Amino acid sequence: MNVFIVSIGDELLLGQTINTNASWIGTEIARIGGEVVEGLTIKDSKEAILNSLDFSLSRADVVLITGGLGPTKDDITKYTLCEYFNTELEIHQPTLDHITDFFTKRGREMLEVNTQQAALPKACNILFNENGTAPGMWFEKDGKIVVSLPGVPYEMKGIMIDEVFPRLVDRFKPEALYYRTIHTQGIGESFLAEKISDIEDALRQDEIGLAYLPSPGLVRLRLSGKRNETNRKLIANYLDQIEDRIKKHVFGFDGAFLPGVVSELLIEKGYTISTVESCTAGAIAKSLTSISGSSQYFTGSFLTYSNALKKEFADVSENILTLHGAVSREVVEAMAQGGLKKIKTDFCISTSGVAGPNGGTDEKPVGTVWIAIASKKRVFSKRFQFGTDRSRNIEMTVNAALNLLRCEILNLNT
Amino acid sequence: MNVFIVSIGDELLLGQTINTNASWIGTEIARIGGEVVEGLTIKDSKEAILNSLDFSLSRADVVLITGGLGPTKDDITKYTLCEYFNTELEIHQPTLDHITDFFTKRGREMLEVNTQQAALPKACNILFNENGTAPGMWFEKDGKIVVSLPGVPYEMKGIMIDEVFPRLVDRFKPEALYYRTIHTQGIGESFLAEKISDIEDALRQDEIGLAYLPSPGLVRLRLSGKRNETNRKLIANYLDQIEDRIKKHVFGFDGAFLPGVVSELLIEKGYTISTVESCTAGAIAKSLTSISGSSQYFTGSFLTYSNALKKEFADVSENILTLHGAVSREVVEAMAQGGLKKIKTDFCISTSGVAGPNGGTDEKPVGTVWIAIASKKRVFSKRFQFGTDRSRNIEMTVNAALNLLRCEILNLNT
Repeated sequence: MNVFIVSIGDELLLGQTINTNASWIGTEIARIGGEVVEGLTIKDSKEAILNSLDFSLSRADVVLITGGLGPTKDDITKYTLCEYFNTELEIHQPTLDHITDFFTKRGREMLEVNTQQAALPKACNILFNENGTAPGMWFEKDGKIVVSLPGVPYEMKGIMIDEVFPRLVDRFKPEALYYRTIHTQGIGESFLAEKISDIEDALRQDEIGLAYLPSPGLVRLRLSGKRNETNRKLIANYLDQIEDRIKKHVFGFDGAFLPGVVSELLIEKGYTISTVESCTAGAIAKSLTSISGSSQYFTGSFLTYSNALKKEFADVSENILTLHGAVSREVVEAMAQGGLKKIKTDFCISTSGVAGPNGGTDEKPVGTVWIAIASKKRVFSKRFQFGTDRSRNIEMTVNAALNLLRCEILNLNT
Repeated sequence: MNVFIVSIGDELLLGQTINTNASWIGTEIARIGGEVVEGLTIKDSKEAILNSLDFSLSRADVVLITGGLGPTKDDITKYTLCEYFNTELEIHQPTLDHITDFFTKRGREMLEVNTQQAALPKACNILFNENGTAPGMWFEKDGKIVVSLPGVPYEMKGIMIDEVFPRLVDRFKPEALYYRTIHTQGIGESFLAEKISDIEDALRQDEIGLAYLPSPGLVRLRLSGKRNETNRKLIANYLDQIEDRIKKHVFGFDGAFLPGVVSELLIEKGYTISTVESCTAGAIAKSLTSISGSSQYFTGSFLTYSNALKKEFADVSENILTLHGAVSREVVEAMAQGGLKKIKTDFCISTSGVAGPNGGTDEKPVGTVWIAIASKKRVFSKRFQFGTDRSRNIEMTVNAALNLLRCEILNLNT
């Protein structure tokens, strides 16, 4: 199952938008056992689209096209596909109904250009777009497949997951690669590689692949091999070995998502949580509430950016603030204890630090962050030294705080 | 000056690395007046490289290849280029000296594979790589140019800036493209297109290009034309016309970033801001503090997820909550007034809504969000109806709230 991706959009060639659609598709096609063999980015022009179809069909079995399906005048993909597949447009009633419904529900006026989005090529299967007004289109020619999808990432992903991947799997029955992922927090890629180097040697001897996929504060390890029972057992065994080696850092497997893991743990134990945030200014609360149903465990927060609010709302004493400064163990622990008491939750996370890029001192350089966790049992805090990039520092702090909370609930912190 | 980018790398096709090189090159080529007409991503394979050369040379005057020049076995670009251009490798002494020096300075041992990096095709010009060991290669064939560069971003960028762009400008003397961007919030792509359709017709007659670039809650409009004085004036005039037509929605031009625009406005006027957030749970505070120096205007927030906290911290009365429910004009206005009084700022933004995907009712379906803004002058609120995707709803709410605040400060809300 060889796939060729055609990405349409002047904004991609001009560098105004980064092509994250192509990388998402690459990952997902690999997951279902196919392979993206090439990707071509082209302009919103008829000549470029026609030429890309000839080229891509000479290189792969399946061509996935994204972009150029919007309602505006610069979007010409649909008309060009009609020409290439020698067909014409006609109004597709289920799509028109969906578009009408889409606008009605949002209380927005429906325009003629939106009606025109329901005019679709006769010679294709229509792929329902739950999240938007431009459906996908599935064409076949000489045993090859051409699928055209909107470029808006969440619309494209929705149609891929619901409509395209199931049909491709059904058609090609690809021999899937078997792989599993282990998710870690708070351990750098090279340090991790060193820590598990003997395990890595062993799994490579067993022809199991290992890839490190880092993001700020997190590293995913992906183990892969041919899909068979031996490899399934081997990989499960290697995952156990890795987890045992670095237990505090491993927060989950496969599709695990740190806020999701923490949320499940809180719901399972029946605990409530609040935050008192300074340098992260809501980023931890935002993360804890990124999951539907978060009101089961999340109660609320004080974002105490100013020292006045740290005193007034989180009951941090003037004395501690003057003596130690806002970025200190004493203040961050007082903040967590103040939040626990006033918001009345089982746990309270607090942060205070220098997010940067300015505001550092010799003693507390940019990237210095204190995180505390208070519960009825105890208050516990830890100092971190991150880098100089503001948004990265905030992201690293959120990940560190969520994993500290996970370890605190599971009694893994010392 | 038409440019075709070939990006070599299995990791790009597998989605493990996002192709930021291509977007950087796109931006820089536009800046010097060229145009990236297409981009192709291929595997580290001889067949794919040879095929991409035929295809790309049929599509453009200049082919820029990145990747596949490392010292390891899977990097085969150099050998394939020798075959394509019918030449052979020989040691290039200045490159060998540079590599030797590179290793000596870093106190690292030089291996045979590194020496081999100085073996370069006879039939090309060598482009010096200050930041690494693999130099760039500049080939010419039938009046067309093929340049091969390393894939490591900072090495690629260094060679581009020092060697490639000056040679291209010298050779093609390109007439640069001139373009400007206008940023809007709160007006859908199709509604916007309809609102300015007469302006769009006029600018297309003047051969000015117009592109719509949407993201959740925001649409950027890019106007472009050949770089000359006439177009500079024409585009400025069209931007004025568009701004006049949809004043409330336009928050900036060119590199504008909504939280940055709001932060500059707050600093300029000397205003302070707080938030009382329910459904956004810190997302507005996070956005307001994404800029360094945000403590000049941001004081703090209450995140009142539970009704108990809405009452206790934001002074919302039990009576109002029971009568109207948490997602209502009355509650969201009371929250903003409570925050203004207790956090003592010039403005306070509040939110209450159903972020979804669950929790909606017939009267208040998923995506219903109320936003209020309180100041000494007045309290003002607005109801929004977004979609069913939780994170998108939160992002749309943040953008709507920031633009409402901007309009409130500038007296554009009615």
